[in-house]
Parts: sequence; structure tokens; C-alpha cells
Amino acid sequence: MAAVSSRPWPFKTIFITGCNRGIGLEFVKQFLSLSNPPEHIFATCRSLERASELKSLSEGSSNLHLLELDVNEIETFNQVVSEVDRKLEGRGLDLLLNNAGIVDRSTLDQVTAEGMMNVYKTNTVAPLMLTKAFLPLLRRAASQRNNEDSAKTFIVNISTILASIAENTGTMYPYRTSKAALNMVTKSLSADLTSDGVMAVALHPGWVKTDMGGQGGNLTVKESVEALLTVIGSLDESKNGGFFDFSGKALPW
Amino acid sequence: MAAVSSRPWPFKTIFITGCNRGIGLEFVKQFLSLSNPPEHIFATCRSLERASELKSLSEGSSNLHLLELDVNEIETFNQVVSEVDRKLEGRGLDLLLNNAGIVDRSTLDQVTAEGMMNVYKTNTVAPLMLTKAFLPLLRRAASQRNNEDSAKTFIVNISTILASIAENTGTMYPYRTSKAALNMVTKSLSADLTSDGVMAVALHPGWVKTDMGGQGGNLTVKESVEALLTVIGSLDESKNGGFFDFSGKALPW
Repeated sequence: MAAVSSRPWPFKTIFITGCNRGIGLEFVKQFLSLSNPPEHIFATCRSLERASELKSLSEGSSNLHLLELDVNEIETFNQVVSEVDRKLEGRGLDLLLNNAGIVDRSTLDQVTAEGMMNVYKTNTVAPLMLTKAFLPLLRRAASQRNNEDSAKTFIVNISTILASIAENTGTMYPYRTSKAALNMVTKSLSADLTSDGVMAVALHPGWVKTDMGGQGGNLTVKESVEALLTVIGSLDESKNGGFFDFSGKALPW
Repeated sequence: MAAVSSRPWPFKTIFITGCNRGIGLEFVKQFLSLSNPPEHIFATCRSLERASELKSLSEGSSNLHLLELDVNEIETFNQVVSEVDRKLEGRGLDLLLNNAGIVDRSTLDQVTAEGMMNVYKTNTVAPLMLTKAFLPLLRRAASQRNNEDSAKTFIVNISTILASIAENTGTMYPYRTSKAALNMVTKSLSADLTSDGVMAVALHPGWVKTDMGGQGGNLTVKESVEALLTVIGSLDESKNGGFFDFSGKALPW
């Protein structure tokens, strides 16, 4: 595998959800710290009022645009895309990073229909519908690339090893099913959009010490996102439709 | 593989959903035609008024009990389980066959959030919640078996090759995601219930000529269900948590 550091960061315009904390916030920090940072980073969170760290990052950067977005409010997506479109002034979106998600580890005893539906909406349906809303901007980015540019236009869905049916050891019904379904969405997108030059992958960030992952994780948020940036930075056609962990290793469905 | 016909049909009490037509109706017919038919077959459909063929089957058989059930009405499941429990008079349920489902082949252009949610509720959440409601009767069946009896208590979820993420060639978002999620549910159940002696598998019935599958299928309903009965009749611990087609071949997740 070619060393990634030798290749410049290929995504100039990025949209990422769920940035008030955890992995999303760290992605924004590390995007801004790249030697050649993206020209436009659109970072969303449900409430800017409760995202003080994200806000302070934006104060020092004209590249970073903050947007309020609740991914459950699917009817607002077209409005958000319009705002991004205005800011991009005719350019496309190189990278859509569907990071926002919720965890529900309910056991068989605990699981409810309502819990299943809520988690599916946030973790599966929202990324699909947001991707659908961004298709014109993703296709525009792909069409504007010249052939010599090895970078591609990518949809990156944050998944989890817990989404692997093959590796499933039980329980956590709402979370596991929603993320397995997201893996399916990712695979369908990869097949449906490849002729447009738009690719899709699902990534497992590792077991990360965050509010969501708990403190028992074996990776810090910083380590996980550094590793994910290496994987994302080296994405090419050969990875389209795949499911990889933070080290780039392919995972079983 | 041992010839299945040499082994007596191992499931004496069966609950099956979606029996007004197609595969569900054919399952009921073939259960009744077994040389040693199940003692209790509970077959459900949304409306008995529109299930004339199913009703005529029940007129000739005291083993067949018809129940109205809309699997989307999850709040009615406990009532249905109570009715079954009364009829079983202290026995357990050997086989729960989650057959009811809907198809939505929406492309990326067509898919809506509402469509995604509806199909997930029927195809994924309903089988999970129905299984949960039947756990006391499934566990009872498992606890009443003697050790020499090689048969087990099984949950059989009707899945599809279209649920295979590995084999996915794109589109059909609502259907594919819901059935991939059902595969995940199946695997979780298989892990969570194995210590209770309750097993779970997902089965692909083939591409069957039905109202649902269309007339382009390469199997008749009769052929598909004959084959599925052979697979179900030969289920044992080695199959627990697996995904198989109508010929018994393991499918990739």
C-alpha cells in the first residue's frame, strides 16, 4: 500500500454531520490541521448553542461553515443543500461524511418497536435521504474532476464492527440492525452511483473512548480520526462499496 | 447430507404469518399434506374475509387454526400469543415462521423516508417483536423436549438473496435494507437464545412466481415450499444463526 502521507488530501469540499462532540468534532479539528486544509468544510450539529468547542474552531477559520441540522428532520435537507450550494458558488461536494448517529444497545428483553424505529430513522434513513439530497452536488463534483486526478467523489458512512452480521455475538438490536442496514445502503449507493463517478464506503472507527462509545474503548478520539483520515485520504475506485476499519482492513458483512 | 425424508417432520406446533396467498398459503397446504402433519398449525392473515382458500383448508382440518393478524399492529401480539397459549394447553411452540412481509423496490430516485420506515416496520421490527412475544412459548417447547429428540425449537425468518450485502448490485433500498436488518435480527436471536435451546435461521425461498415476486421467477410456489420444507425439516444446531437458500446452501451476508 502506498504511503498516504505522500498524497495530498484529495477532498476540497466536505460536508459532515454530528460535529458537536466525539468523532465529528475531531474530524473538523483534523481537517483544519491538514497542511493543505479543505477550502470548504460544512459541519453540522443539532444546536450551535450547545457546541461551544465547534464554534470556537469556526472563529479562527474562514474555511469552516457551521450549520444547524437535526438529521431526523428530513424535510429540512433540501434547505441545507441550498445553503451549501450557495456557498460553493458552482463547485460540487467532494466528500459527504455521514457521521451523526445514535446508540441504542437494547437487549432482547429491553427492545421496543419504537426504539427500533427511532434508531433506524437516525442511523439509516437519514444518511440515505441526506445523500439523496446532496446527489446534485456530488455529481457536479465528479463531473468537474479531470481524468488525471486520482481522487474521487465519496460518500463515507460511519458504521461499526457491530454492524457486521458475520461477527455478531448477539443483543444490541436497534443499533446493530440500523448499522447493518446502513451498510446495505452504502453498498447500494456504491453500485447505483459508480457510473456518475460517485463512490461510497462504510467505515468502522474502532472502539473509541467517547460519550457514545464509553470509556472502555482502546482508541482515543484523536487516534481513531487520524487513522480514519489516512483511510479516507487514500480512497480510490478499488475501495468502492467496501466496509473497512480505521486501519483500512476490510471487514466481513 | 442425510436424506431428509427418512426423518419424521420434527415440528408439532407451528405459528406462521402471512398465509392468505403465495408462500405462506403453500406452507399451510404442505404442512397439512405431511404424512404425519403438525398437531397445531396457527396460520395468520390480515383479513380472513379475503382469504377464501385458507378458510377452505381449515374446514377440512382440526389441526389448522386461523387467526387474523396485521403484523404492523404490534400492540396486538400479546393477545394473539394468549390465544395460541390457550389452544396449546400447556405445550410450547416448536416453530415460529415469520413469513409475512412486503416488497418495495424503490430506486434511489424513488425512495422516500416514509417508504423506508414502513417497510422496516413490517419486514424487520414486526418479526422481532412477534418473536419476543412468543419467547415464553418457544422456551417452553425447548424445555419440554427430551435430550434424545434431535429436533430443536426454531425461529425461521423468511429473508431473500436480495438481503445479501455481499451480493448487492444496487437499488431496491426499502426492501434490501429491511431484509439485511432482518438477517441481523436473526443472527442476534441465534446468539441470545441458544442457551435456551431456541435457534434461528434466515431462509431465501428462491425467485418464486407469486404476486410478490412477479411471474418471471424460476420456481413455482410449490417447488419453493417443497424445498424449504426439506431445509426446515433438517434444521439442527449446526444451522443456528445461518442464512440459507431453498436448497440448503449457505448464503453470504
